[in-house]
Amino acid sequence: MIERLTSLICGTGPMNAVWSPDATLQRMLDVEAALARASAAHGVIPQPAVASIVAACSADQLDAQALARDAALGGNLAIPLVKQLTARVKAADPEAAKYVHWGATSQDVIDTATVLQLRDTLALIERGIDTACATLAGLARTHRTTPAVGRTWLQQALPITLGLKFAQWLDAMLRHRERLAALRERALVLQFGGAAGTLASLRDAAPKVSAALAQDLGLALPALPWHTQRDRIAEAASFFGMLIGTLGKIARDISLQMQTEIGELAEPAAAGKGGSSTMPHKRNPVGCAAVLTAATRAPGLVATVFAGMVQEHERALGGWQAEWDALPDLARLAGGALAQIEQIAAGLEVRPGRLAENLDATHGLILGEAVMLALGDQIGRLDAHHLVEHASKSAVQSGRSLYEVLAADPAVTRHLDEARLKALLDPASYVGEAHAFVDAVLASYETNAKQRASH
Amino acid sequence: MIERLTSLICGTGPMNAVWSPDATLQRMLDVEAALARASAAHGVIPQPAVASIVAACSADQLDAQALARDAALGGNLAIPLVKQLTARVKAADPEAAKYVHWGATSQDVIDTATVLQLRDTLALIERGIDTACATLAGLARTHRTTPAVGRTWLQQALPITLGLKFAQWLDAMLRHRERLAALRERALVLQFGGAAGTLASLRDAAPKVSAALAQDLGLALPALPWHTQRDRIAEAASFFGMLIGTLGKIARDISLQMQTEIGELAEPAAAGKGGSSTMPHKRNPVGCAAVLTAATRAPGLVATVFAGMVQEHERALGGWQAEWDALPDLARLAGGALAQIEQIAAGLEVRPGRLAENLDATHGLILGEAVMLALGDQIGRLDAHHLVEHASKSAVQSGRSLYEVLAADPAVTRHLDEARLKALLDPASYVGEAHAFVDAVLASYETNAKQRASH
Amino acid sequence: MIERLTSLICGTGPMNAVWSPDATLQRMLDVEAALARASAAHGVIPQPAVASIVAACSADQLDAQALARDAALGGNLAIPLVKQLTARVKAADPEAAKYVHWGATSQDVIDTATVLQLRDTLALIERGIDTACATLAGLARTHRTTPAVGRTWLQQALPITLGLKFAQWLDAMLRHRERLAALRERALVLQFGGAAGTLASLRDAAPKVSAALAQDLGLALPALPWHTQRDRIAEAASFFGMLIGTLGKIARDISLQMQTEIGELAEPAAAGKGGSSTMPHKRNPVGCAAVLTAATRAPGLVATVFAGMVQEHERALGGWQAEWDALPDLARLAGGALAQIEQIAAGLEVRPGRLAENLDATHGLILGEAVMLALGDQIGRLDAHHLVEHASKSAVQSGRSLYEVLAADPAVTRHLDEARLKALLDPASYVGEAHAFVDAVLASYETNAKQRASH
Amino acid sequence: MIERLTSLICGTGPMNAVWSPDATLQRMLDVEAALARASAAHGVIPQPAVASIVAACSADQLDAQALARDAALGGNLAIPLVKQLTARVKAADPEAAKYVHWGATSQDVIDTATVLQLRDTLALIERGIDTACATLAGLARTHRTTPAVGRTWLQQALPITLGLKFAQWLDAMLRHRERLAALRERALVLQFGGAAGTLASLRDAAPKVSAALAQDLGLALPALPWHTQRDRIAEAASFFGMLIGTLGKIARDISLQMQTEIGELAEPAAAGKGGSSTMPHKRNPVGCAAVLTAATRAPGLVATVFAGMVQEHERALGGWQAEWDALPDLARLAGGALAQIEQIAAGLEVRPGRLAENLDATHGLILGEAVMLALGDQIGRLDAHHLVEHASKSAVQSGRSLYEVLAADPAVTRHLDEARLKALLDPASYVGEAHAFVDAVLASYETNAKQRASH
Repeated sequence: MIERLTSLICGTGPMNAVWSPDATLQRMLDVEAALARASAAHGVIPQPAVASIVAACSADQLDAQALARDAALGGNLAIPLVKQLTARVKAADPEAAKYVHWGATSQDVIDTATVLQLRDTLALIERGIDTACATLAGLARTHRTTPAVGRTWLQQALPITLGLKFAQWLDAMLRHRERLAALRERALVLQFGGAAGTLASLRDAAPKVSAALAQDLGLALPALPWHTQRDRIAEAASFFGMLIGTLGKIARDISLQMQTEIGELAEPAAAGKGGSSTMPHKRNPVGCAAVLTAATRAPGLVATVFAGMVQEHERALGGWQAEWDALPDLARLAGGALAQIEQIAAGLEVRPGRLAENLDATHGLILGEAVMLALGDQIGRLDAHHLVEHASKSAVQSGRSLYEVLAADPAVTRHLDEARLKALLDPASYVGEAHAFVDAVLASYETNAKQRASH
Repeated sequence: MIERLTSLICGTGPMNAVWSPDATLQRMLDVEAALARASAAHGVIPQPAVASIVAACSADQLDAQALARDAALGGNLAIPLVKQLTARVKAADPEAAKYVHWGATSQDVIDTATVLQLRDTLALIERGIDTACATLAGLARTHRTTPAVGRTWLQQALPITLGLKFAQWLDAMLRHRERLAALRERALVLQFGGAAGTLASLRDAAPKVSAALAQDLGLALPALPWHTQRDRIAEAASFFGMLIGTLGKIARDISLQMQTEIGELAEPAAAGKGGSSTMPHKRNPVGCAAVLTAATRAPGLVATVFAGMVQEHERALGGWQAEWDALPDLARLAGGALAQIEQIAAGLEVRPGRLAENLDATHGLILGEAVMLALGDQIGRLDAHHLVEHASKSAVQSGRSLYEVLAADPAVTRHLDEARLKALLDPASYVGEAHAFVDAVLASYETNAKQRASH
Repeated sequence: MIERLTSLICGTGPMNAVWSPDATLQRMLDVEAALARASAAHGVIPQPAVASIVAACSADQLDAQALARDAALGGNLAIPLVKQLTARVKAADPEAAKYVHWGATSQDVIDTATVLQLRDTLALIERGIDTACATLAGLARTHRTTPAVGRTWLQQALPITLGLKFAQWLDAMLRHRERLAALRERALVLQFGGAAGTLASLRDAAPKVSAALAQDLGLALPALPWHTQRDRIAEAASFFGMLIGTLGKIARDISLQMQTEIGELAEPAAAGKGGSSTMPHKRNPVGCAAVLTAATRAPGLVATVFAGMVQEHERALGGWQAEWDALPDLARLAGGALAQIEQIAAGLEVRPGRLAENLDATHGLILGEAVMLALGDQIGRLDAHHLVEHASKSAVQSGRSLYEVLAADPAVTRHLDEARLKALLDPASYVGEAHAFVDAVLASYETNAKQRASH
Repeated sequence: MIERLTSLICGTGPMNAVWSPDATLQRMLDVEAALARASAAHGVIPQPAVASIVAACSADQLDAQALARDAALGGNLAIPLVKQLTARVKAADPEAAKYVHWGATSQDVIDTATVLQLRDTLALIERGIDTACATLAGLARTHRTTPAVGRTWLQQALPITLGLKFAQWLDAMLRHRERLAALRERALVLQFGGAAGTLASLRDAAPKVSAALAQDLGLALPALPWHTQRDRIAEAASFFGMLIGTLGKIARDISLQMQTEIGELAEPAAAGKGGSSTMPHKRNPVGCAAVLTAATRAPGLVATVFAGMVQEHERALGGWQAEWDALPDLARLAGGALAQIEQIAAGLEVRPGRLAENLDATHGLILGEAVMLALGDQIGRLDAHHLVEHASKSAVQSGRSLYEVLAADPAVTRHLDEARLKALLDPASYVGEAHAFVDAVLASYETNAKQRASH
């Protein structure tokens, strides 16, 4: 339960169940059961063997300790699993035991089980993305016009809106939604090739058994087996990595905005979560930290799966085996990080007071460009630039606000009266296309949502 | 020219030209020129300024040494480039100089230039994949039925066909072809947001200028700027990494089959390439080595781009900048590795004699399963299994071939006569679905090719 | 037990025990117990509390499920562990419960526990390196003069000795031995700094408690806490990665030499390990595959720990947490891979017949240089070069051996008689410094071994 | 010059010169020249050939374009370099041309050249570390007692001193200094083994030529060649990666402290560096960004070198070649990042006003623990805890300072009078061992510095 500390802080939700040891074994047994059904349907094994085999395909009947010991000897988990399965079938039905795992190779079982787990993973991720998108869309709508500081290089730059920030995150998530659909199309396929990928031992029945097996498991049938062509798995790894990267960006922003000195946003409070009884001012971004942990781990795991693609001949020597932990780790990190962002977004605290304070931290300097453009319409851009530049420097040196300096300069007030100046120095009035950008992303989100609903 | 040794051995082809320093600068200037046109078209800058700006947008007019020095100070290449460009415009047309780079931020120029280079890259890669696919399809067709040793764990396992190996490679390449199309759709978009991503300084003209700029450059217009949402770039990096992984797998196989002791395949000979005057038996897999070098480098570069996704607020502090070399390196490695595989495949030497010798290296043991199945039809699978197992061990111990042992055993010859035994021990007769698999991939290749031709 | 599939095939030995969930929790409790003793010794907590706290510091008393749930809320495992520990102490001795974890922060406990596990890890690795070195030294000694094919680019190049290969591996292992000693020196230090790394809450007693705590745990006391300075951990990760890299190189060589077509070496046979009943010719390099799996995984894990070094202020947001699984994974992979190489080396089968056959595979061409040099002494190097080059090509074309061609050429036989020619074409006579190199490494090994013995 | 954008922003200093294409070629030619001298000294080549060979060993005589083209064919840069060198020697002295590169293999030349560049690199890094350490020691001394906010989870936690922060950085740098010395010892060795690592073609002269060559180049002579044992190179890569990690941590801290809203530190201002004419409040952390860029890139590059360690037999197929760019990139990034931190530290602006403001941002809450401990001495820890916890919450709710709340509570003032309360709430008085920790690191720094000076 607490073996994987990183997974731990990413939460112990349904994604961990998909990739638990028990689930992995059960998925392998599901493949064995389906294989028995498909083989019997096409006369490869006797029909009466099926019930006995299927009955034994239950993970809780396995001896896990023996599996671990023998897997190390044989080099993979399928060898001892088939051995134990065969022994169990034999105990009940010696004849049926001859037909266990018929025509398949270890990798057929392990890969197809992984694909089944991947299918469950993608379903969870899809639901998570949809939930997160709905929440982010709501936030973007609510804060469509809320002014906020735009920061570049970790320095205050120009005003933006908080809605724009949320729309940015949403926009990226919508692209991940698209990628998920394409990945599903390409990756959820059967692996079935036998010892050297030719299905030779099934003789004439091979095509029919393959098709039946794919159908039984609800997977697509690929043109041919793909034991040492791992681009499908690499694409899955890469999808998880990209998704985690986006989630990490969101967590980075929120945690920066949660800093004591900035305090614009806060993760939702929860009993036992990130608080401190003696330091009530402290609200640790525990969820963001979990997401950033995932984001620190993902690139190395993606690199591992990519490095493993260079495989030897018809069955690999290390590259395939390197996927076994890296892919589940990525799935768990993606699932956990997504769940964290879902929760954080759902309960995100927005603090208007601090947003306003921070917008005023430079006493108007971040609005200098707005004044410059307005002044430029009247006295030419170059002169306006010099004037505002001079005023800004003077404001910094004298400790006055930009408004005070400009309002005291007749060269300015000749063209812009007090009211106009104040309007120009209002952050809300200088957010450019922010509203339109938010609207564009929301429109795209809604179109997508409708399309999905209509399916 | 020889700065990047790895790129060096990946060849000095057109991909290096796409990402050369000169090309990078020129692409940035192309963006500046298009921006001037788009801005003038919508009244943001005076029309007469356009010609002067466009005229100065030529990379060969830049002072590269000053660019390098000033980029280090300013933190990116766009700052000194705009400075030099402005100075050049000013020398010819002081009024026009005021309108250089109007409304844009450094990252707009750098990112959009990168997208333009990415477009050229994808065009080259697409052509390369198509060429490689055509060659691999030809090889798969030619060697559809050529028997070859199937190897698992680097050990001889069962016969396959050489065509199946080629079809496997082709099948993976066809999936990369699909991914390329999707990537193009998502990644080839304009970056244009101004200082904080709001285009505030363009005021009402922002939407029109954006649209005109995208059209001028032939790029799609995204819903909003994406300065710190890097999933598009990560997807490109990942695409290159996956493609290189597949190419690496091909190179691994070919180099293993080129081993002196195996000698089934050989890279095409070329003057000065991989030969040795004093060791005429030696044919170094120089092309494969270059591809495997790319495959060793790619995972770390992909991981770098993924790690860089966690960016701060509206402009990043390190994550964006980390892409600057990693993405071009990946593009160059992908282009170089693909060109190598194109060449290797186009001139691949297939050595039937060595293929046959290797098929016979175990004196028939790799065909034991075929005999077992045939015998099993008559005496039951279990007895057949014991019989063949015994015969195989006896063959190994006595140094005889499996045929000799089996032909001397009345328990076998009672059911399988000499001719049948010989037929069963012919590798060509035990390749299962290999032909069908080849046909399936070729059919899929041809369908795709036709669809593309009809566009 | 079977959670981590990669660890699984790396064996389930003592390294897994060092890093098991139970061991991790126990090590954290060991730190808590030692802290209680050290604090009481210097009057920070009352002496009577010690026994009650120490008595509760047993991992089997913890509720693992609650730990997992609460760790996700609090962001690390120490928070709920301290909570449960306190509850247990309180049940027995309410007064003592006030003094649990006094003055420490979560990271103090987690980091120091990790250092304790690292100490056990390094002890195991040291023993493993020593065993492997002894075996490799024995192999190098035994095969000091056994001729073998030297291969470059996976092509036969020149003869070497098998002993040289073993000496190469040994030489690298000896350097890892040195690195281990330096790592131990730098990394096995206490972490103890309290909430912000100042030990403020311990007031005047801080230095004494720190010193006592370090002494109690048998760790060195560093100049100051190192919560966000992770170079020590990175060095450990890097050490594991380098060691695994060397082990991977050994496994790559052995698995290549085990290929059916080469067959010079073989992993030791064991019941259930890598054999096949129906394919008795097949000896799967199961151990090598496990090592190569570790070698495919290690670089990404090292990169993760390195990426995590960029930590924020006095306590990190993701970088530290990313170590939690990556470092144990590396330790387990290093331990498992080392154990595999120990076993493989201890039972390595060397097949002199295949070594000799392979040396003759080019029919003497790999000895051309030897003849050329001898001939050059008499007729000048250039003429000798031309002569041998011509003879080599002629041998390849005609299918004769190089000896046959040279022996038939009067321009050669004039200077080198039959016996001399045969001697020159004997691989054993053209291995250069191979014997001396073996001797040099063995001498260095023995010196090291003696030094260690005298300690 | 501007090829490598990342290197670009890391500055164009002496490290780029060490690894420039010209320097690389010259180092290879230096090896060729030294080889000629060493070989002639021991009678392997005629003495008169030396002058002609040495005279031609100048990089500016090479045809770079032809080198690039031919390197792609031959698979490495040494093959065409030797070809061009031979041609040049031949033009002047045909007899001498026969003796160019005598007995060496391409990898001997490339690896030894790399080791020479590594030596220069380590000298630069050593100087950089020493300079940075001196500056950091100065800063730690100056700000030994300057109170500052200690932050965990990006939240204000407890006071520390600014000197402690600087001492932390210094402490890590001192460990890198140690690692550098060990690396130098292990890595700066000759590579010389000839075609298969046996030096066979040098016959009896091999040991003497090797020793002379090592001495000529000022390198140590290893026990044997190490063509495919890359742990030395991996250790160098890892050293660069760890150093960059520490520098990245420093840059992360400084850039966070430079945030507009925090403003405690600032990179030194320089003309054209990070400023903005229209936004005078903005001081971009350009130097920190460059360092963080290096820190984002390094892990992937280290992983590449580690992945490359798994090499084949006596010469690798991809693993070695993958080092060619990755190692120089790491050296350049380390050199550039170190130079940035040197400059930043040397001109670091410390803003006492902002430090004080931030210490007061929570209105005393970060000092609650100090009051609690003092109160606990009198009323027991538990009661004190409750009292302060209650006061803190009340302060947050009412908007008053902790002092105001506590001073109004008779339960507190009974034990702590106004003066004592004020003293307890002075951050400078609650920094625990900070001064002692600073002193300990400074003492260790000074001991090291003295030891080095005495050498």
